[in-house]
Amino acid sequence: MYPKSLQKMIDSFKLLPGVGEKTAERFALHLLSINKNYANDFASSIVEASDNIKECEICHFICEAEKCEICLDNSRDQNTICVVQSIRDVVILEKIGVFKGHYHVLGGVISPMDGVDVGDINISSLVKRLDDSQVSELIIATSPTVNGELTANYISKILANKSVKISRIAHGLPVGSDLEYADELTLFKALEGRREM
Amino acid sequence: MYPKSLQKMIDSFKLLPGVGEKTAERFALHLLSINKNYANDFASSIVEASDNIKECEICHFICEAEKCEICLDNSRDQNTICVVQSIRDVVILEKIGVFKGHYHVLGGVISPMDGVDVGDINISSLVKRLDDSQVSELIIATSPTVNGELTANYISKILANKSVKISRIAHGLPVGSDLEYADELTLFKALEGRREM
Repeated sequence: MYPKSLQKMIDSFKLLPGVGEKTAERFALHLLSINKNYANDFASSIVEASDNIKECEICHFICEAEKCEICLDNSRDQNTICVVQSIRDVVILEKIGVFKGHYHVLGGVISPMDGVDVGDINISSLVKRLDDSQVSELIIATSPTVNGELTANYISKILANKSVKISRIAHGLPVGSDLEYADELTLFKALEGRREM
Repeated sequence: MYPKSLQKMIDSFKLLPGVGEKTAERFALHLLSINKNYANDFASSIVEASDNIKECEICHFICEAEKCEICLDNSRDQNTICVVQSIRDVVILEKIGVFKGHYHVLGGVISPMDGVDVGDINISSLVKRLDDSQVSELIIATSPTVNGELTANYISKILANKSVKISRIAHGLPVGSDLEYADELTLFKALEGRREM
């Protein structure tokens, strides 16, 4: 139906997460409808980012140099590393601004069902990092899902013989939520993780 | 938070319709996560489409030549023109494949609230087209919204003195819907437009 070059652009958009036929058509037609510069600027912003963005060689976050700004920031706490699943998790945590240590991006979680094995995520570089530095606490902030828990448990197990305190982010009721609508497992975790007042 | 070039790509994605901060971040990180070729292919598909896609000089649909394939198709009914709001509407109608005539894409509807005037949409080219050819029926298929109706009425008014039959697509209950959930105006239109069985 569409001219060839337009169909190709629509197919490109369809490869983005959560974008189907209709949304891809909408994006493509929108890009064409404004003006030529808009589409060209859009395209060059993609090429530029793709050329410049690298993975930080320490924590696997993204950066334009060898090391990311967080790893290079000496004012941050060198003794604490927060282990997260993805680049986005670092951004989310940085936005709330409470954590002042360093990060380690796993780039996924162990998932036997999807064929993601221990070697497929950045665990070995984490172990090496702990060997080379004086980190005293590791906060494991993988998601509270089956695979997130599995990964957290695996990491805490292989690091058991190291002199590093390993902690897990708290599971419980989200602030502002209602007890009535909480699922059983969350309630169980909330009771289990109760704290003295 | 993000490196400069990545932030620029995120900002580009945010200009797409319905894409906010979070979705733009997700798209950008996805593009970077696959491989360099993927991002470059994506970008070049945009540039290529932007360079090649033109507006058909007859019906304002999109094409890679001067005239679109629909206008060039001599097997189609030369006597009927279906007037639609957007390029997408042509695609939708072509997908169901019932209409075998030609199209005229208005590129919007008259909308006093948004400052879209008669001169801003392709009405003058429609009038010229009718003068230059032997079209016998004009089907106005703008959406059944206030502005769609306004545009349909305006077109039928300015063409009243021409020897062309002007019709409007039917308004009524969607097939498979329930009378109980229809709004009053749709029910009114459905009654008004009743047909003998």
